[in-house]
Amino acid sequence: MKILIMNGPNLNLLGVREPKIYGTTPFETHLASLRTEFPSVEFDYYQSNVEGFLIDRLQQAMTDCTDGIVLNAGALTHTSVALLDALRTLNVPVVEVHISNVAAREDFRHRSLIAPACAGSISGFGLKSYDLAVRALTEKQ
Amino acid sequence: MKILIMNGPNLNLLGVREPKIYGTTPFETHLASLRTEFPSVEFDYYQSNVEGFLIDRLQQAMTDCTDGIVLNAGALTHTSVALLDALRTLNVPVVEVHISNVAAREDFRHRSLIAPACAGSISGFGLKSYDLAVRALTEKQ
Amino acid sequence: MKILIMNGPNLNLLGVREPKIYGTTPFETHLASLRTEFPSVEFDYYQSNVEGFLIDRLQQAMTDCTDGIVLNAGALTHTSVALLDALRTLNVPVVEVHISNVAAREDFRHRSLIAPACAGSISGFGLKSYDLAVRALTEKQ
Amino acid sequence: MKILIMNGPNLNLLGVREPKIYGTTPFETHLASLRTEFPSVEFDYYQSNVEGFLIDRLQQAMTDCTDGIVLNAGALTHTSVALLDALRTLNVPVVEVHISNVAAREDFRHRSLIAPACAGSISGFGLKSYDLAVRALTEKQ
Amino acid sequence: MKILIMNGPNLNLLGVREPKIYGTTPFETHLASLRTEFPSVEFDYYQSNVEGFLIDRLQQAMTDCTDGIVLNAGALTHTSVALLDALRTLNVPVVEVHISNVAAREDFRHRSLIAPACAGSISGFGLKSYDLAVRALTEKQ
Amino acid sequence: MKILIMNGPNLNLLGVREPKIYGTTPFETHLASLRTEFPSVEFDYYQSNVEGFLIDRLQQAMTDCTDGIVLNAGALTHTSVALLDALRTLNVPVVEVHISNVAAREDFRHRSLIAPACAGSISGFGLKSYDLAVRALTEKQ
Amino acid sequence: MKILIMNGPNLNLLGVREPKIYGTTPFETHLASLRTEFPSVEFDYYQSNVEGFLIDRLQQAMTDCTDGIVLNAGALTHTSVALLDALRTLNVPVVEVHISNVAAREDFRHRSLIAPACAGSISGFGLKSYDLAVRALTEKQ
Amino acid sequence: MKILIMNGPNLNLLGVREPKIYGTTPFETHLASLRTEFPSVEFDYYQSNVEGFLIDRLQQAMTDCTDGIVLNAGALTHTSVALLDALRTLNVPVVEVHISNVAAREDFRHRSLIAPACAGSISGFGLKSYDLAVRALTEKQ
Amino acid sequence: MKILIMNGPNLNLLGVREPKIYGTTPFETHLASLRTEFPSVEFDYYQSNVEGFLIDRLQQAMTDCTDGIVLNAGALTHTSVALLDALRTLNVPVVEVHISNVAAREDFRHRSLIAPACAGSISGFGLKSYDLAVRALTEKQ
Amino acid sequence: MKILIMNGPNLNLLGVREPKIYGTTPFETHLASLRTEFPSVEFDYYQSNVEGFLIDRLQQAMTDCTDGIVLNAGALTHTSVALLDALRTLNVPVVEVHISNVAAREDFRHRSLIAPACAGSISGFGLKSYDLAVRALTEKQ
Amino acid sequence: MKILIMNGPNLNLLGVREPKIYGTTPFETHLASLRTEFPSVEFDYYQSNVEGFLIDRLQQAMTDCTDGIVLNAGALTHTSVALLDALRTLNVPVVEVHISNVAAREDFRHRSLIAPACAGSISGFGLKSYDLAVRALTEKQ
Amino acid sequence: MKILIMNGPNLNLLGVREPKIYGTTPFETHLASLRTEFPSVEFDYYQSNVEGFLIDRLQQAMTDCTDGIVLNAGALTHTSVALLDALRTLNVPVVEVHISNVAAREDFRHRSLIAPACAGSISGFGLKSYDLAVRALTEKQ
Repeated sequence: MKILIMNGPNLNLLGVREPKIYGTTPFETHLASLRTEFPSVEFDYYQSNVEGFLIDRLQQAMTDCTDGIVLNAGALTHTSVALLDALRTLNVPVVEVHISNVAAREDFRHRSLIAPACAGSISGFGLKSYDLAVRALTEKQ
Repeated sequence: MKILIMNGPNLNLLGVREPKIYGTTPFETHLASLRTEFPSVEFDYYQSNVEGFLIDRLQQAMTDCTDGIVLNAGALTHTSVALLDALRTLNVPVVEVHISNVAAREDFRHRSLIAPACAGSISGFGLKSYDLAVRALTEKQ
Repeated sequence: MKILIMNGPNLNLLGVREPKIYGTTPFETHLASLRTEFPSVEFDYYQSNVEGFLIDRLQQAMTDCTDGIVLNAGALTHTSVALLDALRTLNVPVVEVHISNVAAREDFRHRSLIAPACAGSISGFGLKSYDLAVRALTEKQ
Repeated sequence: MKILIMNGPNLNLLGVREPKIYGTTPFETHLASLRTEFPSVEFDYYQSNVEGFLIDRLQQAMTDCTDGIVLNAGALTHTSVALLDALRTLNVPVVEVHISNVAAREDFRHRSLIAPACAGSISGFGLKSYDLAVRALTEKQ
Repeated sequence: MKILIMNGPNLNLLGVREPKIYGTTPFETHLASLRTEFPSVEFDYYQSNVEGFLIDRLQQAMTDCTDGIVLNAGALTHTSVALLDALRTLNVPVVEVHISNVAAREDFRHRSLIAPACAGSISGFGLKSYDLAVRALTEKQ
Repeated sequence: MKILIMNGPNLNLLGVREPKIYGTTPFETHLASLRTEFPSVEFDYYQSNVEGFLIDRLQQAMTDCTDGIVLNAGALTHTSVALLDALRTLNVPVVEVHISNVAAREDFRHRSLIAPACAGSISGFGLKSYDLAVRALTEKQ
Repeated sequence: MKILIMNGPNLNLLGVREPKIYGTTPFETHLASLRTEFPSVEFDYYQSNVEGFLIDRLQQAMTDCTDGIVLNAGALTHTSVALLDALRTLNVPVVEVHISNVAAREDFRHRSLIAPACAGSISGFGLKSYDLAVRALTEKQ
Repeated sequence: MKILIMNGPNLNLLGVREPKIYGTTPFETHLASLRTEFPSVEFDYYQSNVEGFLIDRLQQAMTDCTDGIVLNAGALTHTSVALLDALRTLNVPVVEVHISNVAAREDFRHRSLIAPACAGSISGFGLKSYDLAVRALTEKQ
Repeated sequence: MKILIMNGPNLNLLGVREPKIYGTTPFETHLASLRTEFPSVEFDYYQSNVEGFLIDRLQQAMTDCTDGIVLNAGALTHTSVALLDALRTLNVPVVEVHISNVAAREDFRHRSLIAPACAGSISGFGLKSYDLAVRALTEKQ
Repeated sequence: MKILIMNGPNLNLLGVREPKIYGTTPFETHLASLRTEFPSVEFDYYQSNVEGFLIDRLQQAMTDCTDGIVLNAGALTHTSVALLDALRTLNVPVVEVHISNVAAREDFRHRSLIAPACAGSISGFGLKSYDLAVRALTEKQ
Repeated sequence: MKILIMNGPNLNLLGVREPKIYGTTPFETHLASLRTEFPSVEFDYYQSNVEGFLIDRLQQAMTDCTDGIVLNAGALTHTSVALLDALRTLNVPVVEVHISNVAAREDFRHRSLIAPACAGSISGFGLKSYDLAVRALTEKQ
Repeated sequence: MKILIMNGPNLNLLGVREPKIYGTTPFETHLASLRTEFPSVEFDYYQSNVEGFLIDRLQQAMTDCTDGIVLNAGALTHTSVALLDALRTLNVPVVEVHISNVAAREDFRHRSLIAPACAGSISGFGLKSYDLAVRALTEKQ
């Protein structure tokens, strides 16, 4: 099984800066622990600060045998109709994740534009949100 | 470890009616599978259609050694300030779950009043949302 | 034919208090006249001030051979998503009734949350609104 | 007793087109059945697509001994302040009717501008809505 | 000097009905007093309940040497973009009048769609509003 | 092929008045050029300032073998639910046209109530908007 | 008869500055022409840029035999609830005037907070608005 | 004199939990001090987390000689139209109290749905708010 | 103990005018009764219709040993950010009072801009609201 | 004559995926047919998923002798102020096109941020929308 | 060169109270440093808590050879249309300053009513905001 | 001291196009004058039309010893939550600048999403806004 983990703007700073918000673990370290936890899954990882490059990568997932996508779109979650459109053309299940509990932050972070095009959503569990998302994709109901 | 699973209005119909929305598994059956999946966890289960009784039960959790709560407040998610207040007085972590992807339903279901008082939120994975919530409570980051 | 008439919060005061708003006829008296007017109909009556108990009773109607429901949800008409959800799971036609012309009252009474889950709506004819609702349920188009 | 039945824009198409929305009965046929059902009532019928002509006809009802009006204003229900003003000058009770359950349609159909000037409102019962309205006008509480 | 006085929907009832709102003077009587008060002015009068006929008459005023228009658009004041467009194409000054103080009535009467296309506005002085409007048109600043 | 061109309120002034807004060509002149440009098309033309008469004419198009409609509803574009309803009952494709770029004008002209019932929309190209609309109806994709 | 003319903030600049907006006539000059036009009226004049001083002067009018007030509250028209309250305690008729057509200016000038407490409103006729207001107060209907 | 003190959802936790929000005094202790402070008053006390039970108890107050009610409706203050309706049918003066200064908390706590049906409102003085409310009910102006 | 009682615009009319709204007691009379009721309190009294003078007086209270302030800001309650700022710089507790139940009046009186900077709020008890406010300031919890 | 056709995010998928939404023709194929249909026009084509690259290309059009632009900005139509600014600096006419009738889709697609900077707009005719746009640019009125 | 520095409500407290918000420097001290920094500039200084007095002083600036104004309107920034009008009649450039970064404070401080009538705006640099404003007025671009 | 000047979308056109909006000075020319004016400052300059590249460059500033940033985000000021997030992770003071007075332009330019994460804001002084911003960063209060 092949899963793409995709992080949007500013999420390349995980573990490097602002530990109160982003924690102290670089995402690469967490990716390694995911590979250990889910040995049968092949993980791809992509991060970009550019909305359009994230769309490019999502389109590529339509033809490279990706079985599921874990997407933390960061701030684009709340502003990008283009990302919503890209997700709607995908034939691959997508799980929306957030590290923090976005419902407890500013008002403009309460609305997710991309959620309607996702299978489900997980937020508030720190980097563990990614683990739960992978589990949601890999385990049958 | 002791976890309370609490379901709000109309969720007693799970598995009995409207399989397209609620699935075909009664929640009691799913509860049994949870007990199997998490043998070291002691599960309590409570369902009520009455907002005030849910609050009564949440208050009781403050003194009966509950370690975590998985809460599907159903329609009250979007209207109950009283439930929000009850959650705010709890010293127990709460995970909000939803069976369906509420972000893809009517506008008035997009806002969760109780989310700011929860540790995190999981929605859209059917009954599996409960499993992921228990995992979020039991596994350390 | 079996019809459930269900009244929500404060409607137990009909005929007892505030005749300008509620009229001078207790609902029990009117129920007797309904039984006389529709002798072939078996009427059940339920009133509660508790939202959750109304939902309990609606769920019971799914299994006790009720053929139609006449519902005056009172103030819950405008605030209860939970009642809307309960109505959506019913396989029984429901007619929404109001004693007064709610469109001529405060702004927050102009929106009915439950109307989309009802077959039709009748308001403004005093207790006669119930008679018209029963007629709507019993007579074929 | 003399009752005016008045239909607004597009309601001349009843029974002719789009049976899914408008049913298969022309309103003239239904009018005949109303005359049979209420033999002691003298029925007038007026339909126009022009807002101002409907107002002309309503004003005429103030002087031609009309005892009640059944009004389906169609789309003007939601936009016409002029119709509201005309109804407010009438000394004749008016019952608002709708064939479909307008509360379950587009948002802009949820607000009735004319309802505050009507005695009551009936919607969602197909052409039977007219029968119930006539009954509401003819039967004493 | 030639002035057109134009009244919109329901204003044909002035003096006939509802003296509390409309007063007891028919507009024709008031028109006679206007002709006495302003002997050098030639008055035209037009009333219609039909928005489109009012527009037809306004367009005619562009070619029949009308020097000024006194317009009481009634309820159309608040809803008719078409009337606004018609006024914008006129090369004749228009004074908006209202018999009642519309600012003290319902909220939806507080906004005048047509006011931006008028030279000025006078409201609240009963039928005298028309006199003041004629004076505004006939007297030079 | 038979095409109905229909113009709403104030559009009878095209070419006669206010050349800055309406241009200098009367619509009749432009209609002649359309007949020359599309010799195989039979054109009907209808203009009215009365909303209800436009609806009457649209209903007639359902039975007189009209193959397509080019509709410039003028100001009614933004206010008429009745026109929307009339368009919804048509079994003939309708193209919405505007002479000016309505998106660059007042806020209340940015929303088209009738657009959802049209096949497509063309605005901003002066009278040429009509030509493009006819081409859209006559040429196959 | 005794009439108080009261001008609010910035209206002391009339005739002195910005002739395009304020005209070229100082208000004192216009006041003289009013005294000539209405010889039987005793005019008081008060102007202040301070909201509270305008209220002081209005309260004084309750006890100094003022028969009517012509009020141009300037920008306070749109923001001052205190002025509204002061007008509500007056037993003297007040006519609201505006020099320009406020309905054609910025959105925040379209709502008059004080209009509901006035007898009527006149706007858009330059300084002549004051003349019409005095006439409205002095002539009986 | 007989006064009913009624507390809504979560107010049974006063003095037990979260001293920063609720203080350290159980309400029962405070009730005792009220009885000492007002020896001539007979106090009834009722608390429930269930909206409908609060309505039941309010209705009972209409027939048990209650002279006044001190109501802290908690979170229901902001959401319950049913409580508003219950208060409107009471013939007993009600004083709304709040322990905290609700105007300084979240936006959705700024609007009180029940305030229009109360005689007055007191908020922000901790448990002393109850004392002031009792004084307001017992002392004549 | 020294308490400043401060009244805003139009409150100098208490007892003089409009007894239905303002009662028949001049505030000076009530002040005397307050001095009798609270003999150990030194009262200062200040009233102005000018927002800025109220701010001047509040600033003075920072340096003249005032122990508490009872503030009825009248209409400024709903519009004055400047008053809010002045209250925020005070190191003296302020109690907001209103004579009438503002929650039962116009919508724009439901929001208090100054409440977040006050210790508490009391409204609806006539002049007695001031007594309760003084008591709130003088009695310890 | 030189025309630039520019497609925004996700429009590179035309003809490849989701034929129900995007049709079965790759845009390159359609471009060939455009070149055939308009032999005297030199076409440039540019597509990008990156907002900033679209702006780069628009800026380049200011200096490379482009005579007109056909722009389908996709989802950026509704969110990009930056694209609006770029269009405003162009001295080249731009026609906005959409393949689908955006007025019949989600609410957030009804507002075009870029339309005010375009000459005109064409939507709803599938790929033919591009042909009509080219015709609008190439044919003189 | 002559520059007027004008401070609105509560800004007389600078340096005296609440050092966290207002800093520790009295404005008079800072004014001295400004005189030192800009020796060729003649500074006038005016502060008032009264909106109308600020307008009086601004009007005076039109005739006393003031070359520029630095205006910190404090809370009036967000509520005063009268101040906006006064600024619009000035023929002197005005720079709006704020000590704090108002965009990071409460929502109602995000909108400046007076900004459209100013040349530019500087906020967030403490008292240095005044220095930068003087520099903006004195240095040519 | 090292300062990064960063310009967002379309600001590469400064001095090249639209002199009325952008002035006639290319930013490179102005940069040279800044280097002359502030000889002790080392300036970096970055411009991009791509939101994500601006974020990349801001992140780089966290590790390359930048002491301050002058940011003109152009249109992204009003739409980019991602830029706000990037600014929040910076440990470097940022000054927001705008060439024009954005408060006097379209409504959607009145709200700055990024301002809360900046130290201060300067707008309306043309290219001089940059000079003032550099001065704000380099001079101590």
